[in-house]
Amino acid sequence: MEESSAPTSKKGAKKAEAKAKKEALKAQRAAELAAATAAASLEDDPAQDNYGNRLTTTSAFSPDAQEVEIRAIDETCHGKTVVVRAWLQKSRVQSAKMGFVELRKGGNWDIQGVVMASEAEPLVSRRMVKWVAGISPESFVAVEAKVVRPLEPVKSCRVSGFELHITKCFVLASAPAMLGMTMGAASRPIVDFSDDSAPPADADACKAAEAAAAEAAAPAASMLTHLDNIAMHKRAPVQQAIADIRIQVKRLFRSYLEARRFKEFEPPCLIGAASEGGGNVFRLRYFGDEAFLAQSPQFYKQFEIAGGRERVFSISPVFRAENSNTPRHMTEFTGLDVEMEINDSYTEVLSILEGVLLSIFRGIQEQCADEIETVRSVYHSEPLLLPEPGQEVRLTFAEAQKLLREEGPPEFANVRDDEDMSTPQEKALGQVVRAKYKTDFYVIDKFPETARPFYAKLDDAGTTVGDGVRVTNAFDMFIRGQEVLSGGQRIHDPVELEARIRAKGVDPKSPGIKEYLTTFQQVGVPPHGGGGIGLDRVVAWFLGLPSVHLAAYYPRTPKRLLP
Amino acid sequence: MEESSAPTSKKGAKKAEAKAKKEALKAQRAAELAAATAAASLEDDPAQDNYGNRLTTTSAFSPDAQEVEIRAIDETCHGKTVVVRAWLQKSRVQSAKMGFVELRKGGNWDIQGVVMASEAEPLVSRRMVKWVAGISPESFVAVEAKVVRPLEPVKSCRVSGFELHITKCFVLASAPAMLGMTMGAASRPIVDFSDDSAPPADADACKAAEAAAAEAAAPAASMLTHLDNIAMHKRAPVQQAIADIRIQVKRLFRSYLEARRFKEFEPPCLIGAASEGGGNVFRLRYFGDEAFLAQSPQFYKQFEIAGGRERVFSISPVFRAENSNTPRHMTEFTGLDVEMEINDSYTEVLSILEGVLLSIFRGIQEQCADEIETVRSVYHSEPLLLPEPGQEVRLTFAEAQKLLREEGPPEFANVRDDEDMSTPQEKALGQVVRAKYKTDFYVIDKFPETARPFYAKLDDAGTTVGDGVRVTNAFDMFIRGQEVLSGGQRIHDPVELEARIRAKGVDPKSPGIKEYLTTFQQVGVPPHGGGGIGLDRVVAWFLGLPSVHLAAYYPRTPKRLLP
Repeated sequence: MEESSAPTSKKGAKKAEAKAKKEALKAQRAAELAAATAAASLEDDPAQDNYGNRLTTTSAFSPDAQEVEIRAIDETCHGKTVVVRAWLQKSRVQSAKMGFVELRKGGNWDIQGVVMASEAEPLVSRRMVKWVAGISPESFVAVEAKVVRPLEPVKSCRVSGFELHITKCFVLASAPAMLGMTMGAASRPIVDFSDDSAPPADADACKAAEAAAAEAAAPAASMLTHLDNIAMHKRAPVQQAIADIRIQVKRLFRSYLEARRFKEFEPPCLIGAASEGGGNVFRLRYFGDEAFLAQSPQFYKQFEIAGGRERVFSISPVFRAENSNTPRHMTEFTGLDVEMEINDSYTEVLSILEGVLLSIFRGIQEQCADEIETVRSVYHSEPLLLPEPGQEVRLTFAEAQKLLREEGPPEFANVRDDEDMSTPQEKALGQVVRAKYKTDFYVIDKFPETARPFYAKLDDAGTTVGDGVRVTNAFDMFIRGQEVLSGGQRIHDPVELEARIRAKGVDPKSPGIKEYLTTFQQVGVPPHGGGGIGLDRVVAWFLGLPSVHLAAYYPRTPKRLLP
Repeated sequence: MEESSAPTSKKGAKKAEAKAKKEALKAQRAAELAAATAAASLEDDPAQDNYGNRLTTTSAFSPDAQEVEIRAIDETCHGKTVVVRAWLQKSRVQSAKMGFVELRKGGNWDIQGVVMASEAEPLVSRRMVKWVAGISPESFVAVEAKVVRPLEPVKSCRVSGFELHITKCFVLASAPAMLGMTMGAASRPIVDFSDDSAPPADADACKAAEAAAAEAAAPAASMLTHLDNIAMHKRAPVQQAIADIRIQVKRLFRSYLEARRFKEFEPPCLIGAASEGGGNVFRLRYFGDEAFLAQSPQFYKQFEIAGGRERVFSISPVFRAENSNTPRHMTEFTGLDVEMEINDSYTEVLSILEGVLLSIFRGIQEQCADEIETVRSVYHSEPLLLPEPGQEVRLTFAEAQKLLREEGPPEFANVRDDEDMSTPQEKALGQVVRAKYKTDFYVIDKFPETARPFYAKLDDAGTTVGDGVRVTNAFDMFIRGQEVLSGGQRIHDPVELEARIRAKGVDPKSPGIKEYLTTFQQVGVPPHGGGGIGLDRVVAWFLGLPSVHLAAYYPRTPKRLLP
């Protein structure tokens, strides 16, 4: 991950924050002064009906002024009087007769606004100019303005070919003079994802960082500051772009599957037993009894198959009570899950899941080019290398380990074919695969049973690896050396299933397991398989973000549940 | 709700269940006998490769036999050899040389299969006929067969113009001889939704119910029996149809909003404070601290608006720790939520929400006509009366109460304009509105503030009702006299918001409330409003189901979290 334009250390980030607070304080004093002057006597201003604070804009504008979105301002609006509602992101006084503002809406669409004193109708007084140019950044305003072509293109705004000559301006919601985090700070890359909110202690280092931050447009803030200023965090174009990409990932997932006769369902969050390992499960009091939060919809999507739904998918929250304070972990995240009947081979499942991921990655690259560019302007990353159609890379687990032994770094010269991969192994393999096959996306198939849960189906051929360990019809899919999907064929025969449950040292009569097994005994369940995708990880790793927390709407961590 | 074809009492249902178990036991004995005879000596059967139990169908079928779905069997398949995978739902022996089966797939698509002994290729032995006709109902089979036009249409099957002449038949997953609940029982209306699982005690009443049930095709089972046999519950065509309608409701909700620039987001389930009333909230241990499960995404969708997302929706689980064991309540359900910026008036929000509900209701009526018919064949209901476009009924709360006083039943002759409606009042009003306006769908607007939470915006005109109670820009929407949506304008001004929080007796510094209020103080939040729809209730009330539990995939109740 490159973060060339960011402060390079956590210390640096904290000092930059201190600098930001100082700057904000200065801005507050200036704004308070401006406000005091401007508010002195609006009442005797003949233009008083054309500006001010209001809770509603009912009857405020000319009846023939049309509401328009900033993104839609083009040739057809030229010369017309329009109403625009937007965030005022910048304002400055040019002279006693002229002020400039920047208005933003629709993520990162912005346009320049000009307010000029005029004694002719529509009346704009000097006091109005001063008032408008003194509005606090990030206030929500509604303006009436004429769409005009500027003398030269406005470089600082996305809508550069037009500007708004403002004749009315109302503040519907006023931001305070001092923001907890400015838009400039919110738009800088976050480097500090720690949960430790202690202020920086080293004064000398502080000064050095301030000097460094002075070069940048605005200093960076920590993830904690972002979360403490959730509205500003979300308003930053980079977060708007990430949110839009996340939406598109879900849409592509859904549309690929629905086109192939998959049906959505909703697995429960509240479950009666900690069926998939009790360690990382949240427990809660439930009417005198105990309930648990689902760690995955695994059993429920299999119940859908047992229930004759044939091909299903779900988009649902899942929970892990894991006390890991890292940028890779969250306690609540969103699972994209798939389960389907198998006709002849589990490779039908593998193909669908490989297909859905490729459809997502290619789809985002095509449909979210602007948003990706916005994200890359803050968090630099290399474009994701995808295989040409028909050139997809599928390696068996044993082949992947051999590749790592032979072409990976020396510390992995002795990795075994019958033991699961570690995260560093996975990352190293990602680089080897990229160098050899020119792709960041690939499948590792036929995991040894030691690395899979009891419901993973052993392969029919009886293949073994290492010290006679059976391989399974189970696979993982990776991007940039990081797992984004885990899947495979499940055991559908209750006798085989019970045997595997016992072989894994699990009691078939334990809560949750009993009901699971019973379902297979109660009715004939057809051969089936599926997989689960971590939505947050797909978004984060695709974009090369420094933390999965940036891909979530409201990241939940062991130390943070607010807002 | 009419349930004319169902046992009319809970007692009746329990006895019917006892009857079902007896029948199933008889069936088991017969099947065991058949299996023992059939399995005696497959080995020396020259047709042995054409039938039997298998875990996979790899290489089992002729290479030129094409896989086909039952729903797709039509003229183009006539005379062809196909492979069909399906649930065997019925089987019977006609003679030593001929047997019949019914195969089902895709919800409620079924077709007749015939197996006839043949000494010519493809070889079908008499033992094979017997074996196939003895397969337990609800086993999953794969058959190779020729598509043939029957002598006369097969009345018992949905695909009546064709039948399958089976030449190979493999059981991939065998159902037990005795099902916990037969398809016949699973397809009967449920009348017993109690959580009380005690067996019926009255032997005489039992006999009477058995006699009554004998007339029906199969006796009904209780909701508990359905949940204990989750796969059979789901396989019943009525539940398949409800699940398909539920999917379509979500799709219509999403597409209506996306066409109007709404963006999806995901609110968290885990929250740090019981911000919306502590009574009905689930609490859990969270790394030495306490966490709560979200009762609604209210605060979070407002944060999205504060964060500049403009128009948002979510489809997410919500939780209520309410110990109500009724067919109307669940502890986990799915919320469809909407929030949007307001330009001039909260009626913009009202129109969008009215529009999305009407789009859902009209959409289901048009696109799910088959599924609705399937549901009505089990749970009879009157079609939902909808207003003609432009004739939508919007009453103020005071108008609705007046209507109820004047045209409702006498017990509601004194209802007040400044107090919330009770459920019986709502139901009575539904009937008055239906009689007067010929619609089952309507809006009640301008609720008194006594009936709304602190974030509801008081109307600008200062209107009061009853004993000087202010009215709000808040509304509910109803079908058949039951609320399916609650919404309105929210307070966006932090000073006004804090005053209302205090006026409602809430401490503005209490956990959750503090962070909520802070967000409005930190940045300017534009005027906005929205609403929340209960997905389970929309599906249940639209279809006139006797319980919301039938609309859920896995209903969660105070006494039931499994499966």
